[in-house]
Amino acid sequence: MTIVTLTTDFGSLYPASLKAVILGMEPGTQIVDITHSVRHADIRAGAFALYTVVDYFPKGTVHVAVVDPGVGTQRNSIVISSGGQFFVGPDNGLMVPAALRLGDMQVYRIKGTELLGDVSTTFHGRDVFARIGAYLSGGVAPERAGEKTDDYVHLDFGNVEVGVNSVSGEVIYIDDFGNVITNIPGTVVSDLVHFGEVVKVSGRDMPFMHTYGLVDVGEPLSLTGSHGFLEIAVNQGSAASVLGLRNGDRIDVRTPQVAATSTRNVS
Amino acid sequence: MTIVTLTTDFGSLYPASLKAVILGMEPGTQIVDITHSVRHADIRAGAFALYTVVDYFPKGTVHVAVVDPGVGTQRNSIVISSGGQFFVGPDNGLMVPAALRLGDMQVYRIKGTELLGDVSTTFHGRDVFARIGAYLSGGVAPERAGEKTDDYVHLDFGNVEVGVNSVSGEVIYIDDFGNVITNIPGTVVSDLVHFGEVVKVSGRDMPFMHTYGLVDVGEPLSLTGSHGFLEIAVNQGSAASVLGLRNGDRIDVRTPQVAATSTRNVS
Amino acid sequence: MTIVTLTTDFGSLYPASLKAVILGMEPGTQIVDITHSVRHADIRAGAFALYTVVDYFPKGTVHVAVVDPGVGTQRNSIVISSGGQFFVGPDNGLMVPAALRLGDMQVYRIKGTELLGDVSTTFHGRDVFARIGAYLSGGVAPERAGEKTDDYVHLDFGNVEVGVNSVSGEVIYIDDFGNVITNIPGTVVSDLVHFGEVVKVSGRDMPFMHTYGLVDVGEPLSLTGSHGFLEIAVNQGSAASVLGLRNGDRIDVRTPQVAATSTRNVS
Repeated sequence: MTIVTLTTDFGSLYPASLKAVILGMEPGTQIVDITHSVRHADIRAGAFALYTVVDYFPKGTVHVAVVDPGVGTQRNSIVISSGGQFFVGPDNGLMVPAALRLGDMQVYRIKGTELLGDVSTTFHGRDVFARIGAYLSGGVAPERAGEKTDDYVHLDFGNVEVGVNSVSGEVIYIDDFGNVITNIPGTVVSDLVHFGEVVKVSGRDMPFMHTYGLVDVGEPLSLTGSHGFLEIAVNQGSAASVLGLRNGDRIDVRTPQVAATSTRNVS
Repeated sequence: MTIVTLTTDFGSLYPASLKAVILGMEPGTQIVDITHSVRHADIRAGAFALYTVVDYFPKGTVHVAVVDPGVGTQRNSIVISSGGQFFVGPDNGLMVPAALRLGDMQVYRIKGTELLGDVSTTFHGRDVFARIGAYLSGGVAPERAGEKTDDYVHLDFGNVEVGVNSVSGEVIYIDDFGNVITNIPGTVVSDLVHFGEVVKVSGRDMPFMHTYGLVDVGEPLSLTGSHGFLEIAVNQGSAASVLGLRNGDRIDVRTPQVAATSTRNVS
Repeated sequence: MTIVTLTTDFGSLYPASLKAVILGMEPGTQIVDITHSVRHADIRAGAFALYTVVDYFPKGTVHVAVVDPGVGTQRNSIVISSGGQFFVGPDNGLMVPAALRLGDMQVYRIKGTELLGDVSTTFHGRDVFARIGAYLSGGVAPERAGEKTDDYVHLDFGNVEVGVNSVSGEVIYIDDFGNVITNIPGTVVSDLVHFGEVVKVSGRDMPFMHTYGLVDVGEPLSLTGSHGFLEIAVNQGSAASVLGLRNGDRIDVRTPQVAATSTRNVS
C-alpha cells in the first residue's frame, strides 16, 4: 500500500480531481496532502513545503508536486528518483531541494506518449502528473516515463550571510497563519543569541523565543520553527500582514552582541 | 475499495464526525474531501464544487453532499444514481448539476426507516447522509434507501447572455483565495478576445490572461480557471474583497471589439 | 484497519510528517484529520475540538493530539484508554474532556525507552506521539507505553452560571469561519428563549436563531451549533473580528424575560 503525496497551489476543491484520478487507477493508494495553500505560482515556496517533510516518508513514497506557472508552455515534465522515493511534476526546480535532501537523484524527462498514450486533451498537470504518480505508485519504473537526463532546472533557497552580530537571508515561505519563514537555519541564530534576548529583525525589535505564546497577543517574536528555520511570527496574529513581509523579502537579523568583545573572528 | 467524497459547508472540525461514521461502518472506504469551505448555506456554490470534480471519479464513487439550510424542516433527502456514481444529500438541488453531468439520473427519496431503522435522535444530515453513504459504499442498492421519484428540486447555474462584444453572467463560487468564479464558460470569452487584451468586467478594466502571475501583485485579471469557467482574480490578493464581489452578483464582460465591423450577427 | 485521528495547532504542511511516520509504521491505517487549525498553544480549544467529535468514532480508534506549548520542558506525555478508544499526547489536559466523555479512563505515563528505544533526537511530539499512535493502532497495549498513573493534569471547559433571565459562560473555541463557540450548552439558552427572540450577548442585541442565513449578511446572531454549544456568529462574516471576541472572553447572555413574572426560582 504505497503513499502518494500532493503539494500544490490549488487551494481546496481542485485537489479532489487529482485524488480521483489516482484512486481510480490505484484504488489502494494512501494519499497524503502536504499542502494545497502554496502561494499561486510560487515555485520556491512549494519546493520548501516538500523539502520540510520529505525526510519523514518511507521508501516507495511518490510525491506529486504541481506549482506550475509554466503549464501549457514548452517547459518539460520530469520524474525524479532519489533515496527510494519518487517525485513527479514540472521541470522548474520545485522538487529538487526535497530530492537532494534524500541523496543522489536520477532525473527522467517525461514523454507523454510512453505511459499516457495519445493525450488528445490539453496537457495539464492534473491529467499528466496524477496519472504518472499513480503508475509509479503501482510499481511502474521511472524509466518507463521517459529518458534519463542531466539537463534539468535547479533551485535552492538562496544565500545566508553570517556576520559577527548579524545574519541575513530572505523569506521563503509564509504559512497558513501568516508566519514568515526564512532560509536562515535556526541554529545559526541560536548560536548567536540566548532564548529571550531581543534581536532586531529588519529594523524591528523582537525577542528570540521558544514558542509563540511567550509574548503578548499581537506582539512579534522570532523563533526556530518546527521546520528548523528562523521564523518571524506575531502571537495570534499574521506576521506577514502586521510586518508587511512577503516571499522573497530580504531579512536582516542583528543580535545584541554589538560589543567589540566578540570572540568570533571577523575581518 | 470504494471512494466516498464529502462536500460541505462545515469548515474544519465537523467533517471528522462524518468520516468517523463512514469508517465505523465501512472500514476500507477511501474518503476524499472535495471541500468543506462552501459558503454557509450556499446550495449553488456547493453544487458548483461537486460539479467541477465529479467527472474525474471512477464508477462506484459515492458523493455525500451536505449544504443544507433546510435541515430540520420538511425538506426531503434523496439518493441519486447517475453514470455509475451515487449521490446522497438533501433534496435542494445541491447534487443535480453534478449528476446531470454524468448522464441520466435516477432519484430515490430517502425513507429513514428503510435503511436506518428507528432514528430516535434529531434527524440531522450527519446521522443520515453519512450512514446512507456508507451503505451505498458497501454495495447496498439505492432502491433500499427509498422509492424512486421524479419529483425533486432542480438547480442550474443561471443564464449567460452573449452579445457581439459583451457577455453577461453571474458569480457562482468564491474560492479559498477569494477568486471569483462565474457561470460564464471560459471558451465564450476566449472566442471574443485574445490573451492579453483588456476587457471591462463590471465596469473595471482588466486583462484576460492565462494565469495569475502575469499581472503585477495586487492587480486584477480575468482568466479561464481550471474548472473551465471565467474567473476574476487579483494576483496574490482576494478579488472578492478588492472588487467587492459576492456570490450571485451579476457580471458584465465587455470586450474591446466595439467597432461596427464585427463579423458576428446581432440584432 | 484502524483509525488514527490528528488534532493539532500545526496548520497545513506540518501534519504531513506525522502522517508519514504513522503510515511508514502501519501502512493500512486510516488517518482522519480532526483539525489542524487550533489556535497556537490553546490547549482548551484543542480539547474542545477532540471532545466534539470523539463520540462518533468506533472502538479501537487512536487519537493523536498535539497542542503542546510545554514541548521540550519537563511536562509528561501520556496514553489514555477510555471506552475502547485510545489517546496519546502531552499531559496537559488536552485529551481529558474527550476521554471522560467516553467513560472511565486509564492513564499511562509514557516512558520513552519502553517503546521508542533510544531516542537520540530532541524529544518532540512528532517523533513520539505519532510513533506511539502507530504502535497503538497496530495493537500494542497501552501498558507497553508506560506505567499506569492517577497523577495527570485535569481540564474542563469552565463554569456556566444560569440565572432567571441570564446565562454566563466563556468563549472556548473560535472556528475557521470566526464563529465564536462558548461553553454554554445550547439547551440552556433554548430553555430560556424562543427561536427568533432577541437576546443581549455581552451587551449587544442579536436574535437566537436556527442557522446563519436567517439574518442579513453582516448581522450577528446566536445559535446552537452542531457541537451542541451556544455559538455567536455573523452571517457570512467573522464574529470574532466583528465583535472583538477571543478565546477565554466572558460571555453574558441576557434573555428578554426581564419581567418579575418569571416562574423560575431565584434568590
